[in-house]
Amino acid sequence: MNKTIGIGLVGFGTVGTGVWETLERNCNLISNRSGIEVTINRIAIKDLNKARLAQVDIDLFTTDWLDLVNDPTVDIVVELIGGTTTAYDIVAAALTAGKPVVTGNKALLAERGQGLFALSNEHNTPIHFEAAVAGAIPIIKAVQDSFVGNNIESMAGIINGTSNYILQRMTEAGLGYTEALGEAQKLGYAEADPTLDVNGWDAAHKAILLTSLAYGFTIDPQKIYVRGIERVRTMDIEFAKQLGYVVKLLCVVREHVDGTIELRTQPSFIPASHVLSNVNGVYNALAIKGDAAGDSLFYGKGAGKEPTASSVVADIVEAARNTLTKDVKHRGFLPYKDKGELMEIEDTSTPYYVRFDVTDQVGVVAEIATKLADAGIGISGTHSPVDPNNPDAAFVDMVFQLHTCRFGLLKETLKKIESLSCVNSRPVVFRIESLS
Amino acid sequence: MNKTIGIGLVGFGTVGTGVWETLERNCNLISNRSGIEVTINRIAIKDLNKARLAQVDIDLFTTDWLDLVNDPTVDIVVELIGGTTTAYDIVAAALTAGKPVVTGNKALLAERGQGLFALSNEHNTPIHFEAAVAGAIPIIKAVQDSFVGNNIESMAGIINGTSNYILQRMTEAGLGYTEALGEAQKLGYAEADPTLDVNGWDAAHKAILLTSLAYGFTIDPQKIYVRGIERVRTMDIEFAKQLGYVVKLLCVVREHVDGTIELRTQPSFIPASHVLSNVNGVYNALAIKGDAAGDSLFYGKGAGKEPTASSVVADIVEAARNTLTKDVKHRGFLPYKDKGELMEIEDTSTPYYVRFDVTDQVGVVAEIATKLADAGIGISGTHSPVDPNNPDAAFVDMVFQLHTCRFGLLKETLKKIESLSCVNSRPVVFRIESLS
Repeated sequence: MNKTIGIGLVGFGTVGTGVWETLERNCNLISNRSGIEVTINRIAIKDLNKARLAQVDIDLFTTDWLDLVNDPTVDIVVELIGGTTTAYDIVAAALTAGKPVVTGNKALLAERGQGLFALSNEHNTPIHFEAAVAGAIPIIKAVQDSFVGNNIESMAGIINGTSNYILQRMTEAGLGYTEALGEAQKLGYAEADPTLDVNGWDAAHKAILLTSLAYGFTIDPQKIYVRGIERVRTMDIEFAKQLGYVVKLLCVVREHVDGTIELRTQPSFIPASHVLSNVNGVYNALAIKGDAAGDSLFYGKGAGKEPTASSVVADIVEAARNTLTKDVKHRGFLPYKDKGELMEIEDTSTPYYVRFDVTDQVGVVAEIATKLADAGIGISGTHSPVDPNNPDAAFVDMVFQLHTCRFGLLKETLKKIESLSCVNSRPVVFRIESLS
Repeated sequence: MNKTIGIGLVGFGTVGTGVWETLERNCNLISNRSGIEVTINRIAIKDLNKARLAQVDIDLFTTDWLDLVNDPTVDIVVELIGGTTTAYDIVAAALTAGKPVVTGNKALLAERGQGLFALSNEHNTPIHFEAAVAGAIPIIKAVQDSFVGNNIESMAGIINGTSNYILQRMTEAGLGYTEALGEAQKLGYAEADPTLDVNGWDAAHKAILLTSLAYGFTIDPQKIYVRGIERVRTMDIEFAKQLGYVVKLLCVVREHVDGTIELRTQPSFIPASHVLSNVNGVYNALAIKGDAAGDSLFYGKGAGKEPTASSVVADIVEAARNTLTKDVKHRGFLPYKDKGELMEIEDTSTPYYVRFDVTDQVGVVAEIATKLADAGIGISGTHSPVDPNNPDAAFVDMVFQLHTCRFGLLKETLKKIESLSCVNSRPVVFRIESLS
């Protein structure tokens, strides 16, 4: 005899609809596998008049989320509205009411997770958030459970599908950034407001969550280094290709011998031979290295209705199991280190590719190279795109490939170079990642 | 204040030592993350006189596993001795005593799991077996928990590191099978008795477990199709390469529209462009396709001391958590379908590559081709390796690349071909997998 667990769904957009459909389609499978009947008993939405799926009983809907949280037929609250304000209130209310929460809201947890996880602990009521990072890929479970016995040495991931799609189209079809973004929006891969996707913050929010889980401390989003793909140009991608690299928006997390954690998100050159370079479109992948497990890779669909629903449903079943066994234990995140030990971005070191917007005049290369030499930064190559039919045509772009140095040193030096009269704007910097 | 959980370790070979070392090395990390102090309180071994790690207190050892199971300081029993006889008794005794079991024993669970899972259910005491499949890769958790809301459409995996290493060395270094096997044994990648690794059964045991979890029924190992790599020759690998394929020992699981499950393990040609073709050495990978999650891939170290210990420790922590919250629920596998619905191997269809050992005489190709034509099997190519300096030299091998047909039809036809006087032994068959 199966037990029944009632769900309250807050938000009925793309993912909410996906959760509804998945629970409908695979209800027998889920109850067979888990011994639990999961039913959606309430759905909170903003506007009752908005057209909804015909199959959903209109009586399930409410515009009052508090009504849903307090509904005695709701055992588990699933928050899928996004944002960090109302969503916070909903999750806090559910936890306070002792109702386990399932959420896919990475911004909420990365920006205001500390308060919610503390509430979760106080009320001994879990928050599940597999869907917050990398869609269908069970990466939270991997870091939190499967790698529990590992010192995690490093993580490197492509965890924003929108920017990955845009970079892929720029790479494969030679599209410009604006054109590729437009295509992604047209296909539904990018939101009408794609800001958080293309400025790196969606990926950074996910990286913050993974880093907290791996290293046990709360991370202040203000303190981490995040750059997006807005300034990537087709010529950067072309240069990368010539040098044997592919341009990806990469999150890098690494523990250093002094215990500090390097955490950064930026467009990067990664070796074309590395498996991450073949992660295309809306797919995500995360490479994790543990001291026991060694190198591992998790790959799958990083976003979208069904893949995200897959993780939400897995979390619902886990929450339901725990609820039924009265095991309403804390499964959010509790820091076990009092203060963060993030490495200053200035102290991180890689090789770099830097593009300068210059005025073509005799001495440009010498002036820039001299500043780099004065700082002790080695140059492994420099180039400007030249029309073979007109090698003397004026150019406006000049790229330098630089040896490994402290990012702080590079920053200072680039500031000095910016002040040269022949340099017209802030240089564009890509990390070159060896991923070894 | 952390809680303490006592472990009884049965078996202290490679993996047992790895578990000990991992728990020692990362004890703070594990207790910080889980709130649980895990200590190994007893270790059962065969021979007390065998030299053991100096760091282990000799008082922990016993030669009586029943003594260990009954020890009140042992909350969780970890079975790492392998085999299907004594190991069965140990696991059964632990479950009967209400002590959760962690095991990495794929043969035990695939051959005799039905009885153990029933005991687990009867005594409401879980069996955890992440380490039984694919070493450090959390693939049991993925199929059992993360994909719980998915109808699993297919799985394809490279899940035996030993045979994968041998095939890789044959591919990269042109070694013969015997030579590559010898190298693997020398490097510790193959056991002194490598039978289960090279005959496909180690992989098949893992595939049986995954298939049971995915489709909910107990599988009779007698009824599945398993072929190993013993008859793979360097020339097969060469032909594969020429045709754009790589030879891998592949497990294939697929649900068909009639609800039957295709399950087979055999050396296969897979496209060189597919990500699985780049899974080398002792690495494992499993591609899973779910109706919600879409295509996913899990990759990591498939065997070895530390990677396997990583999964054992993860299971220990999960079992410890459940024990402390009195949530000693069933987490083994309970079939929810009464009888299996395996597809007969004869009813599966792929293209094939078939190598015949022939006597070089005029008419060989015609005789074989006629038999194939009579059966309605299309030929897309036929070839024998010919020395360019001596194109008329006698050959003994003749390969045919065949179009998709029922395996049953191919088998019958090959039997007829075998009876031809020009054919000297049983043909060697490889599946050609599109993996799409």
